[in-house]
Amino acid sequence: MISSTSNKKIKDVVLLTKKTSLRRERGLFVVEGIKMFMEIPDEDLEEVFASESFYNTCPTEAKIKMRTVPHEIVTDTVYAYMSDTRTPQGIMAIVKMRQHAKLSGNAFLILDRIQDPGNLGTIMRTAEAAGIDGILMNNETVDIYNPKVVRSTMGAVFRVPFVYTDNLPVAMKELGAVVYAAHLDGENDYDAEDYTGPTAFIIGNESSGISDEVAAYADKLIRIPMKGKVESLNAGVAASVLMFELARQRR
Amino acid sequence: MISSTSNKKIKDVVLLTKKTSLRRERGLFVVEGIKMFMEIPDEDLEEVFASESFYNTCPTEAKIKMRTVPHEIVTDTVYAYMSDTRTPQGIMAIVKMRQHAKLSGNAFLILDRIQDPGNLGTIMRTAEAAGIDGILMNNETVDIYNPKVVRSTMGAVFRVPFVYTDNLPVAMKELGAVVYAAHLDGENDYDAEDYTGPTAFIIGNESSGISDEVAAYADKLIRIPMKGKVESLNAGVAASVLMFELARQRR
Repeated sequence: MISSTSNKKIKDVVLLTKKTSLRRERGLFVVEGIKMFMEIPDEDLEEVFASESFYNTCPTEAKIKMRTVPHEIVTDTVYAYMSDTRTPQGIMAIVKMRQHAKLSGNAFLILDRIQDPGNLGTIMRTAEAAGIDGILMNNETVDIYNPKVVRSTMGAVFRVPFVYTDNLPVAMKELGAVVYAAHLDGENDYDAEDYTGPTAFIIGNESSGISDEVAAYADKLIRIPMKGKVESLNAGVAASVLMFELARQRR
Repeated sequence: MISSTSNKKIKDVVLLTKKTSLRRERGLFVVEGIKMFMEIPDEDLEEVFASESFYNTCPTEAKIKMRTVPHEIVTDTVYAYMSDTRTPQGIMAIVKMRQHAKLSGNAFLILDRIQDPGNLGTIMRTAEAAGIDGILMNNETVDIYNPKVVRSTMGAVFRVPFVYTDNLPVAMKELGAVVYAAHLDGENDYDAEDYTGPTAFIIGNESSGISDEVAAYADKLIRIPMKGKVESLNAGVAASVLMFELARQRR
């Protein structure tokens, strides 16, 4: 049992939760909580840490899953130190990043510099529910392996393919889909378009929207009609409305 | 100019930002930021506090609006102490609560114990954009005058009528609308219903959904079809999908 917060393994985990660059270098990220832990594909598991009190009371299937890879029991104090949540959940896994070289399918989401971790996580969870086949993001989008993003995907991070790119316009074209951008200058209402063919929606940054450079590469600008004095919708709300319109048309 | 954080007025403002009970007792709440400040209806303004550096550089129209009511300039240090945000915006107003005795119209949202301030704010902002006429909430819903909620409404708090009730089933009936509840036991897909007549949607608590007691008073249970392994949608996402389907049908 690990009982010291200066243990090298413990320090390593803390760094992994905090540093995007270290996560990228090692190709590993951190997942916390029993529910998320049970959803990790077995082949992606690298190592598991459990607090003493969690290990003594956890369900048998969690123990069985833990034992398939190297695992460590740590004191509750050490665990609380490792966790970045206010209510530590007692189990934390180091997980291998998936490499999705190329997206395939006929329904995509394209994210241009989404910054809020909770937004990205919720968008990914909603994308899975709406039947989106893949998410394309530029490198200025928040890191999907940020622990807050991982948590708020509710497991969708393990199921929805995604790709980061440093050249969004080129990668957008390679999707082979009609690319729509929700934009204040949009011509048609979003629900006047036909999304039954290969379709991609661009969603822009929370405060500045879609950059002009990226919008210029969209095939069509559409608008979500808004009443009242609202100037824009939350990025996650706009994404939800568009994705569920696509799902509605395809049912 | 106020230069001490132990000034009684300053202490009072801080308490108002923190205590729901005090806000209710006084019928006042706190609004921060220039954008939100300019949207406050003049007749609702009670008092304004500006930081020294904000006051020296702020737009003339903000100064004119400030001077219509009692206002105080405070040192930047005192202002930072008053503000509950990481990047204090330099202007803060004490605002009178509106009393909406009864909701009227033909499109409503009913919230059952929504807990997350950001969720409630975003739902209200989205409701305005979708053309919802009013929001009915039970008392277990987070306080709409919580500073985080106020901020995330982006001004909708001043424009969308809302009512808190301690008897949601009775108040629901009084809306005179067909009440739909998004529910896992829902019979029809949400988009198979007709929302062109008087309509209300119930949205439930983030983790436990709509309570059985409240759901029992709905006229119809509907479902939002979900693909993949997603068990539920975020409350704000579910609300957005339903409200924009109503808006779509009414266009």
